[in-house]
Formats: sequence, structure tokens, C-alpha cells
Amino acid sequence: MKVIADFCIVPLGVGTSLSPYIAAAVDELEAAGLECTTHAYGTNVSGEYDTVFQALKKALLKVHELGAPRITCTIKLGTRTDREQSMQDKIESVTKKRRNATR
Amino acid sequence: MKVIADFCIVPLGVGTSLSPYIAAAVDELEAAGLECTTHAYGTNVSGEYDTVFQALKKALLKVHELGAPRITCTIKLGTRTDREQSMQDKIESVTKKRRNATR
Amino acid sequence: MKVIADFCIVPLGVGTSLSPYIAAAVDELEAAGLECTTHAYGTNVSGEYDTVFQALKKALLKVHELGAPRITCTIKLGTRTDREQSMQDKIESVTKKRRNATR
Amino acid sequence: MKVIADFCIVPLGVGTSLSPYIAAAVDELEAAGLECTTHAYGTNVSGEYDTVFQALKKALLKVHELGAPRITCTIKLGTRTDREQSMQDKIESVTKKRRNATR
Repeated sequence: MKVIADFCIVPLGVGTSLSPYIAAAVDELEAAGLECTTHAYGTNVSGEYDTVFQALKKALLKVHELGAPRITCTIKLGTRTDREQSMQDKIESVTKKRRNATR
Repeated sequence: MKVIADFCIVPLGVGTSLSPYIAAAVDELEAAGLECTTHAYGTNVSGEYDTVFQALKKALLKVHELGAPRITCTIKLGTRTDREQSMQDKIESVTKKRRNATR
Repeated sequence: MKVIADFCIVPLGVGTSLSPYIAAAVDELEAAGLECTTHAYGTNVSGEYDTVFQALKKALLKVHELGAPRITCTIKLGTRTDREQSMQDKIESVTKKRRNATR
Repeated sequence: MKVIADFCIVPLGVGTSLSPYIAAAVDELEAAGLECTTHAYGTNVSGEYDTVFQALKKALLKVHELGAPRITCTIKLGTRTDREQSMQDKIESVTKKRRNATR
């Protein structure tokens, strides 16, 4: 089962500068061979369900290993059986329907 | 790694009556031996990371099998290495600090 | 526009004991006259859109006032124009379709 | 209160092709003068709390007006009182700490 996901990993108990932990987490996701794109409130990830959630586990363990005693993580997860769709397809299908679409 | 999670599974392309699909999904989660509590916008789940996400996979496959061609799922996931905490502990630690707490 | 929502307010930069902040936030939501139910990963809220989001604003300001320099909040929000539905209706429509439903 | 948010608006009861509804919703957010960036699982938005949630209300009403009888929406919301931070700042603070950062 192929999934498109959005992960937002928030280490707790490490103050307010979270980016070193998040960068290490995204490194783990990418090391698992997943396509990753970081935006202003998370990282989009695409891949097989098992690969994605094994990679997330490694990312969480890494964040704990770096010193975070607690993590809260928000995930959006999409699956579909009707057709294949890439992350880029999803963005384009919205942007080309916008009022000011240039295409 | 023990996790406390919140799953909100939303089948798409099946109209607006989603509860038969959600009930079947929660049945799958509980069949995996997970402690489950359904609230008005999702289901709280507690267990080992691998058990939880293998159960979620089965739940999603079940929802597709029942006829949903597409699913979007929102997940909140908490892990901590500093101490053990149950779902009931989390609720009580908030409610007993409420202004009108009766305990 | 009536909404059913789920709020998960996470103060950052205050260590790992978050419940005093969350209790104060839920107090604010309830002070606005909203029906609130706290579960293991958030609080369900029901009311008019404007009332709900003005109450959330007060809750966030309260958490900052109590000392949190940063907050991340995850919200699920449902609206429907086809029929009225309470939070209790949503829970019951799932639970009565469960495999082991006793009703 | 300035916020950075992530909105994922999911119309229900309209089949599986959601992008026309989402495009119209993002048009509404942008018409309110908000900075918007669409990614593969939502749209990042930045602005004053009241402006952001009034714009979201208009976006939801628009999606209902276009024919969706039900909507579920997932929101991530960040506020901070310690310092100003733009959406671009957030992305850069992560990407420049990545293992393979080129800057």
C-alpha cells in the first residue's frame, strides 16, 4: 500500500529551538529512501506504508537519542486504490484550478 | 517504544455516512489487542509502536475493502522516555488541575 | 455555522509537564460556554464557529500568559450543512455499529 | 497575535476529486490577503489570528456553497511570543541543519 503522508515532529522538554531535532528526523526519513519535502509546518513523505512507518520510528528514536524526553507528532496520511498519484500531482491538481492559475 | 496515539480515519468517495467504515476500522484496532477509546473526533489508542501501526494498516485495508477508494487519516502520536504514562493518566493529570476540579 | 472540533494545545519551552497549561486552556474554552470533553490526546468542543475560535484565541493567550513562549496546536474541525449532529451522536453512530456493539 | 498555520480542507460527499474545492478554498484564503503556500497535504498560511480564522470561515462556506454537504479540516497552528518568525525562516532553520545541507 502506497501512502502520501505529512509528518510534523515536535520534541518536548528541549526548549523552543526545535530545528536541530527536526533536521535529524528528516535526515532519517530520507536515509530510508523516502521522497521528502519540508514545508513551514511539516515534511511531506511518499512511499510504501511499511517503509514510511519504519522510517518514522527511526526518526522518533533519533530525536529521543538527541535528548528529547518526550515527542508529540502530527501525521496526515492518504491512501487510494482508485489510481496512482504522486505528491507533485496533488499540488498541481490544486494549483492549476486556482482562479489566477497561469496554466 | 510505547506510544499513545489518536487516529481519525476518514473514508472518501462513499458519501457522508462514514460511521460503518469507522466502526470496522476500530474493530480492527481492537482485534490487534490495543486499548481503544472512541471520542467525537477520533479514537485514542495505546500500545507498542509496531503493533499500533500494523493494526492501523489492517484498519485502512479493511476500509478500502469495504468500498472506500480513498482515505485520509489524521494521527496524533506521543512517545516519552522519561516515564510511563497511560491514556487515563493523561486525562486525569489535566482534569484534576481544572478550575472546577472536584478531586 | 456550527462546528465540532478537536483541540490539542501543546505549550513549548516549559519542560515536559504540560497539564497545568492544558487545564487552564480548557477552563478558558469552557468559560466561553462551549461544551468540552477532554480525552487522552485533546479536547472535543462544540459550538458556533466564531465562538469556538474566539475561545481558542483566549485559551492560547492564557497559555502564553502562564509562561509558554511558544505553542503548537493541532485542530480537527468538522462542519456539515446536511443535518445537525451532536458530539454524542457522532460517538454513538460509531459505537452502535461495532462488531461487539451491545445495542 | 501572529500565527503560522497549516490547513488541510477535505470536502466529503463529493466523490474523490477534491481539488476543485480545495483550489476555491485557497483562493478565498489568498483573497483575505494571507500569504499561502500549497504543499502535497495542505496549505501553509501566515497572518494575524483573526484574519486567518475569518478567512478559513469564508473558505469553508465557499466549499459548502460549491456543493459539499460536509467538510473535515485538519489545522496545525503555531504562535510564539519570544520572537518573530516567517514561514520561510522555519523552512530554512531546518534545511540548513540537514546532514547534506548545501549552505
